Amino acid sequence: MESRLGPVSTPGALPYYVAFSQLLGLTVVAMTGAWLGLYRGGIAWEGTLQFNVHPLCMVIGMIFLQGDALLVYRVFRKEAKRTTKVLHGLLHVFAFIIALVGLVAVFDYHKKKSYADLYSLHSWFGILVFVLYFVQWFVGFSFFLFPGASFSLRSRYRPQHIFFGATIFLLSVGTALLGLKEALLFKLGSQYSTFQPEGVLANVLGLLLACFGVTVLYILAQADWKRPPQAEEQALSMDFKTLTEGDSPSSQ
Amino acid sequence: MESRLGPVSTPGALPYYVAFSQLLGLTVVAMTGAWLGLYRGGIAWEGTLQFNVHPLCMVIGMIFLQGDALLVYRVFRKEAKRTTKVLHGLLHVFAFIIALVGLVAVFDYHKKKSYADLYSLHSWFGILVFVLYFVQWFVGFSFFLFPGASFSLRSRYRPQHIFFGATIFLLSVGTALLGLKEALLFKLGSQYSTFQPEGVLANVLGLLLACFGVTVLYILAQADWKRPPQAEEQALSMDFKTLTEGDSPSSQ
Repeated sequence: MESRLGPVSTPGALPYYVAFSQLLGLTVVAMTGAWLGLYRGGIAWEGTLQFNVHPLCMVIGMIFLQGDALLVYRVFRKEAKRTTKVLHGLLHVFAFIIALVGLVAVFDYHKKKSYADLYSLHSWFGILVFVLYFVQWFVGFSFFLFPGASFSLRSRYRPQHIFFGATIFLLSVGTALLGLKEALLFKLGSQYSTFQPEGVLANVLGLLLACFGVTVLYILAQADWKRPPQAEEQALSMDFKTLTEGDSPSSQ
Repeated sequence: MESRLGPVSTPGALPYYVAFSQLLGLTVVAMTGAWLGLYRGGIAWEGTLQFNVHPLCMVIGMIFLQGDALLVYRVFRKEAKRTTKVLHGLLHVFAFIIALVGLVAVFDYHKKKSYADLYSLHSWFGILVFVLYFVQWFVGFSFFLFPGASFSLRSRYRPQHIFFGATIFLLSVGTALLGLKEALLFKLGSQYSTFQPEGVLANVLGLLLACFGVTVLYILAQADWKRPPQAEEQALSMDFKTLTEGDSPSSQ
């Protein structure tokens, strides 16, 4: 059993689950590219193809990179806590910048085409999730990196940061599914019901997006797979308190 | 702090979160009814209105009742374990039957109208979630109620049952959002972008559906709010092992 291993060991099954999540994540990114290339004329910043920048950037940023940022603490188990923390924050910065490009693309495209903004359920979820993502990053950075909060504040905020991090990721997956559905219905309309190749490909992409979300959540949810506190950290680092269970009953 | 309370006490904030979840859940059911009544001509088993049975039944069964079934172990903290277990299983049975009526309604409606079945992303998710829900119920019933599995099998399956229970619930919320989006785009089409009252109402309903999902997940995720093992149960019941953390490192 994993739970009997020492604190610096990696649980036996974890690498396989992480590898599977990466396979799913890369497949989702590749399939999004294939969908846009095969059925939507590819990608460009000018003209009608500018719209296609939106789904690709959102899937790379808000799904794949955001998901991987959440897995950093499960994958980097032996590295210094601060290094892992900086990597977690940096991956979220990359995800945020790529998603911002995707957002600018769709607003710019709507403006050129004189389309209305922010009327659909997808867009309401999208804006909400993007704002929450920024707030979560900013508060996380302030508490855990710079300037940093006190032991007690950190250990009280930490479970909230983890819960809302996972929630924002799941809402991002949900928002992507709504966007995919919208893109299909706008273009295919009643043709969607005739099992067009584009419809089937996009449905499979939707299922794989959900599978990636569930796999990341599964890895995060395994108590045995959490990054264990390292002896060196416990003695040297101010971060020790943030690694423990804090004031949960199981730590009594 | 809740964690310092005795094993049979109720954490201070829990009732407020549960009350809030019920307010959200009932609002979602009422708004679904209002949407169907105001903009879709109401509900009937015959004719075009048969379709409307589908969203209402799915929201009552797969969202509200399924969510409440997950909260049973947080709300009934002092009752006998077996009573709580039976209530959890029964709520899922009610949810399943109501959802089955909703499924029959949409297939029957499609048949009468000669519409294609199971072509959309919503329908693929829907069928998958419904099958997973049945399998989860059946395996849960077999392991925990009748005939029941051994201590060690139960304690190994329990975390999986909890994870997949929450996952199926979240997938149900996602499926409802996809269905809502589909219903809006099929009827409103390009009118959706003119902020029609129906579109705005349905968007708000979509956000509230997600809020209900997040609130239930938040209550489930609080380690301090888990149902504590009761002294009497520990001595008398065969279920004791299923209440503890099993073989997680925090119980060492």
